Amino acid sequence: MKGFAMLGIGKVGWIEKEKPVAGPYDAIVRPIAVAPCTSDIHTVFEGALGERQDLLLGHEAVGEVVEVGSEVKDFKPGDRVVVPAITPDWRTSESVRGFPMHSDGMLAGWKFSNVKDGVFAEYFHVNDADMNLALLPDDVPPEVAVMITDMMTTGFHGAELADIQFGDSVLVIGIGPVGLMSIAGAKLQGAGRIIGVGSRPALIEAAKYYGATDIVNYKNGPIEQQVMELTDGEGVDKVIIAGAGSDIMKIAVEVTKPGGIIANVNYFGEGDTIPIPRLEWGCGMAHKTIKGGLTPGGRERMERFLELVRNDRVNPGKLITHKFHGFENIEKALLMMKDKQPDLIKPVVIIDW
Amino acid sequence: MKGFAMLGIGKVGWIEKEKPVAGPYDAIVRPIAVAPCTSDIHTVFEGALGERQDLLLGHEAVGEVVEVGSEVKDFKPGDRVVVPAITPDWRTSESVRGFPMHSDGMLAGWKFSNVKDGVFAEYFHVNDADMNLALLPDDVPPEVAVMITDMMTTGFHGAELADIQFGDSVLVIGIGPVGLMSIAGAKLQGAGRIIGVGSRPALIEAAKYYGATDIVNYKNGPIEQQVMELTDGEGVDKVIIAGAGSDIMKIAVEVTKPGGIIANVNYFGEGDTIPIPRLEWGCGMAHKTIKGGLTPGGRERMERFLELVRNDRVNPGKLITHKFHGFENIEKALLMMKDKQPDLIKPVVIIDW
Amino acid sequence: MKGFAMLGIGKVGWIEKEKPVAGPYDAIVRPIAVAPCTSDIHTVFEGALGERQDLLLGHEAVGEVVEVGSEVKDFKPGDRVVVPAITPDWRTSESVRGFPMHSDGMLAGWKFSNVKDGVFAEYFHVNDADMNLALLPDDVPPEVAVMITDMMTTGFHGAELADIQFGDSVLVIGIGPVGLMSIAGAKLQGAGRIIGVGSRPALIEAAKYYGATDIVNYKNGPIEQQVMELTDGEGVDKVIIAGAGSDIMKIAVEVTKPGGIIANVNYFGEGDTIPIPRLEWGCGMAHKTIKGGLTPGGRERMERFLELVRNDRVNPGKLITHKFHGFENIEKALLMMKDKQPDLIKPVVIIDW
Amino acid sequence: MKGFAMLGIGKVGWIEKEKPVAGPYDAIVRPIAVAPCTSDIHTVFEGALGERQDLLLGHEAVGEVVEVGSEVKDFKPGDRVVVPAITPDWRTSESVRGFPMHSDGMLAGWKFSNVKDGVFAEYFHVNDADMNLALLPDDVPPEVAVMITDMMTTGFHGAELADIQFGDSVLVIGIGPVGLMSIAGAKLQGAGRIIGVGSRPALIEAAKYYGATDIVNYKNGPIEQQVMELTDGEGVDKVIIAGAGSDIMKIAVEVTKPGGIIANVNYFGEGDTIPIPRLEWGCGMAHKTIKGGLTPGGRERMERFLELVRNDRVNPGKLITHKFHGFENIEKALLMMKDKQPDLIKPVVIIDW
Repeated sequence: MKGFAMLGIGKVGWIEKEKPVAGPYDAIVRPIAVAPCTSDIHTVFEGALGERQDLLLGHEAVGEVVEVGSEVKDFKPGDRVVVPAITPDWRTSESVRGFPMHSDGMLAGWKFSNVKDGVFAEYFHVNDADMNLALLPDDVPPEVAVMITDMMTTGFHGAELADIQFGDSVLVIGIGPVGLMSIAGAKLQGAGRIIGVGSRPALIEAAKYYGATDIVNYKNGPIEQQVMELTDGEGVDKVIIAGAGSDIMKIAVEVTKPGGIIANVNYFGEGDTIPIPRLEWGCGMAHKTIKGGLTPGGRERMERFLELVRNDRVNPGKLITHKFHGFENIEKALLMMKDKQPDLIKPVVIIDW
Repeated sequence: MKGFAMLGIGKVGWIEKEKPVAGPYDAIVRPIAVAPCTSDIHTVFEGALGERQDLLLGHEAVGEVVEVGSEVKDFKPGDRVVVPAITPDWRTSESVRGFPMHSDGMLAGWKFSNVKDGVFAEYFHVNDADMNLALLPDDVPPEVAVMITDMMTTGFHGAELADIQFGDSVLVIGIGPVGLMSIAGAKLQGAGRIIGVGSRPALIEAAKYYGATDIVNYKNGPIEQQVMELTDGEGVDKVIIAGAGSDIMKIAVEVTKPGGIIANVNYFGEGDTIPIPRLEWGCGMAHKTIKGGLTPGGRERMERFLELVRNDRVNPGKLITHKFHGFENIEKALLMMKDKQPDLIKPVVIIDW
Repeated sequence: MKGFAMLGIGKVGWIEKEKPVAGPYDAIVRPIAVAPCTSDIHTVFEGALGERQDLLLGHEAVGEVVEVGSEVKDFKPGDRVVVPAITPDWRTSESVRGFPMHSDGMLAGWKFSNVKDGVFAEYFHVNDADMNLALLPDDVPPEVAVMITDMMTTGFHGAELADIQFGDSVLVIGIGPVGLMSIAGAKLQGAGRIIGVGSRPALIEAAKYYGATDIVNYKNGPIEQQVMELTDGEGVDKVIIAGAGSDIMKIAVEVTKPGGIIANVNYFGEGDTIPIPRLEWGCGMAHKTIKGGLTPGGRERMERFLELVRNDRVNPGKLITHKFHGFENIEKALLMMKDKQPDLIKPVVIIDW
Repeated sequence: MKGFAMLGIGKVGWIEKEKPVAGPYDAIVRPIAVAPCTSDIHTVFEGALGERQDLLLGHEAVGEVVEVGSEVKDFKPGDRVVVPAITPDWRTSESVRGFPMHSDGMLAGWKFSNVKDGVFAEYFHVNDADMNLALLPDDVPPEVAVMITDMMTTGFHGAELADIQFGDSVLVIGIGPVGLMSIAGAKLQGAGRIIGVGSRPALIEAAKYYGATDIVNYKNGPIEQQVMELTDGEGVDKVIIAGAGSDIMKIAVEVTKPGGIIANVNYFGEGDTIPIPRLEWGCGMAHKTIKGGLTPGGRERMERFLELVRNDRVNPGKLITHKFHGFENIEKALLMMKDKQPDLIKPVVIIDW
């Protein structure tokens, strides 16, 4: 079968691979809508995960089940399914402790385009189908559902980590697709004021659509200064980091009130350390909690998020700015994520076999 | 000064009383918008709090500060303020432990029209003004802000107690003004499906406006049966009780999934006990947690809720179906709450001195 | 093979059954130490679970693995293992949501001597061995480890549900083996004063050994009255119910402070309802939370509890008052739980094949 | 009156000051037992809080009330009281939000020897006596109670921040008096294995007394390497930092399991930043939460901790290695904290007026 692969650091291309085989609990799925992710770009062009040869890319997909293992109970060929980017092993001590995304090792719940072939393929393999797939409801278009698999679940996890309370003031740093979903998630957990940090007009407009009440453009001066002005010197209750380099922690800690939370869902790709500013962190005693985590995945979560979409609580479809048709356009869509044009938020590729 | 009082169980009327006096931390406030509450009706006509003589009624008000004590720092005469129904003593062990509404005794944070004169008066007294008043922002109309003081804070507390997670299915029993705000609160904390239980068309319409996705009309059959049908026999993640008698607990426990929460913000006025059904509660082992609590009050909470209103997260003003002008109409508005006409949700009285 | 069975309600006896067979993820275990439980008595002589014919009894065991399925990775024949009373299916939505004991249905994580044959057999079957067995360390005697499988995990779950904070005052109602472990668990989570309710001298002595600071003997007057006297009329922060009938809820709610928790780990076997007293529950508004749940089980938990025992944090072995040798003594040990003699806490049977 | 003061950075001495005056809610207390703290040393000899002139030192005291303001209800002259190091203003938004130690500003609940005169004086001033003093029970010696005021409350706060669960493995870095109390606190919340990091024999012995099961001596090799060896390469569930410089964060994050918590109660005195190691922190996605906070203070907490001491849950008196009599020995005791001799844990000064 054909697939779009990372050939090595800095190189991508179409290759032929064996069609994957389902174990007794697994499924084989044919994609019907996929989206590229900035992490694919990190993986290929920055070598963020290290060297990979002929690894099929992609981890955001909706598809049709074409084969299931003998022990799969809830799915059958022909079912249209939402496939989360994170597909944990559920029979691990990490899962029991509430951290399935780290099942069998830190971040090891992330398999597609990381430790096994991704979804940019004619067929892909899903481990533990009953626990990791969700039926696509008829009233949710496949391309909208693709936005749930990583963008929405990751962005919303930022809001979860931030433990939003009614009326919280929240700063969301980075308003790419994940940050936009963090804004939507914070709004949907009861945040009052939500300040987005970004500069591109298309993103600013989307940020307001999803619930940002204020925008800080870092081109207009230091972020921390603008935030403190907006909040009369008080700072914010919570910060969600959904983009930026490791220097951002200094700003995040500085603008957080004592007792607040800094929640990271960003992939820090560079530098040896992420420095916490000592004085602003109260010399270690300010109760400014620093969290950061990979999104949970799995079926239960996808089903919950589909309920949110179906009941009009949020519309992740608004993230889609570019829609392609045809398997071969995966390449073009991926490269768009590399050379981000001003009006891009998220491209999607619809595949009609 | 004049005020509208409970003269004794079953009797109300206008009386003359001494204007209240402010202690060093207190304020005297003149109402500019007030609303009657069903609990005023319970208090007077059912004697729910026991006998009271010449107690001024009312605990939902926005007003203008006319006098402050010597130690009040943040307020001055002329300030327009939101006055929460619950005005705790903050220097108590209960407040330290996170339960200010029970400061110095169970439910004792509720003072107005309970243990001291209420807000249906030319002037009323607010204990600890700096901790219990909030400035009314210019962009929030007084009558909308009145809806925050009890209805929104109580209804939203139902959602807080229910600990709503993204995508939770929630049953809200009772869709009077508190139940409507529980629906809005559940939606605003990320609920997916929200099923409201009620029958009056005006309330059903409002329930849908605030976020209900389904309605169960108890006139169409047993509630539990309808809920189980709607949920394919699974039941719901959370139940919020915002109305009904003590028999409701049987239904609430029955339709809750193992691991779910039943959250009560209803005032159970009758009966010796509220019976938990033994088998449906898993013989004590089903992890169906039963909570119930008076709303928190105080300044911090009012400020947070004003932020929600100002940032268009919720519009409690939609609760108002009847608007009166003039102090003397307090009587008429109160009696409306007794003889609930079909289109009534909540009346408000605006007072232009 | 031979096993000791419930023949029908009210009747027990030795029977012959087929030796169980291991599926690919399962294990077959031969018991080396077992204990009877009061719930076996409920099951047989009160018919608490309904009719059962020829169901092997027992759910507290330590044993030796004799066979494992093809997919079992961490265990092999000859391993000595601790077998939790609760052996969930881990691939269920309930487990994902943190309630494995209710996997695939309320209470359905409890399998032994409930929905499948128990451990009073020459061989018994354990589902999902890698997730539900724990290696017995050399330094923990088998009979001590048996006390972990149900008594300690259930009693400690009472402390977990009660969410003990440093210095909490805790009332533990019932000081049988589960209640004793609730006392030990409350102490081990930082409780200050712990009041045990019971009357038998052997149990009172054990209660003090495990951390009770005060004892209330219900033969000396109403429990609630004695507790209020002991606490200067304040009541307690938390109540753990580890024994008693459904009327106990009235007392539990009455002596709990506003903001407190009532945590049940008792199996309520009789009556249609468990009545909450309305006034003492603040008419639904006192923030006296009522919880109740079956203990979690599984490997991770057994390993954690073994760590507590190995590091001398608690000694569940002190529960054992009667020790038998020989498979055939299971019958005698079980009947001891029925006709509780004054000095009995818990019998154990050691089996040397 | 006389007091022992910081004259300026690097200089201490006895000075004369005006006796303090009580406001309406305050008390004046005469010390009967005091202890110096390492933070006094930081303040004076490292200038950690910046320049201070003629500021009386000390914040750990038990004393006798000599005067109370007109509004104080629960205390009177002659009462023997425990005085927490942290005496918050309870009428602040921070206190309402659960962070009284930051009332009116980050760390501003810490007043003694920071923003007002400390307890090394003939008389000292306590703000809000009813909320910040606790009666000394007859059965707790004053010098033992002094250990509660800062060492025990701070050390135990480490365990609270770490959210210890039954059987958790915990690493406590630093086994000075605060670290020893973190060990005791972790044990008292149900930790299994507790690994202490230190080198002085007197401290190691005390660490084992308080519950350490293993000791890592940093003189024997890199801490992280020793911890990973002790834990078979798995790391620990929780880390409590109770001593060390900012480089310790690298080690702490490295040895923490995904999903674990790093809890700091250390005062980081030097360096611009506290660097989080990027890769070990899962590039921001490992769910290794980093917390740090000043201890809560106030009456309620002191009363809870006195309950723990009275009920033999912990004996903080074992921290005391050197006992002096006489006000004038405060100087000697303080300097002991500077020139730590090998057998020193904590000195105390008992004052008989």
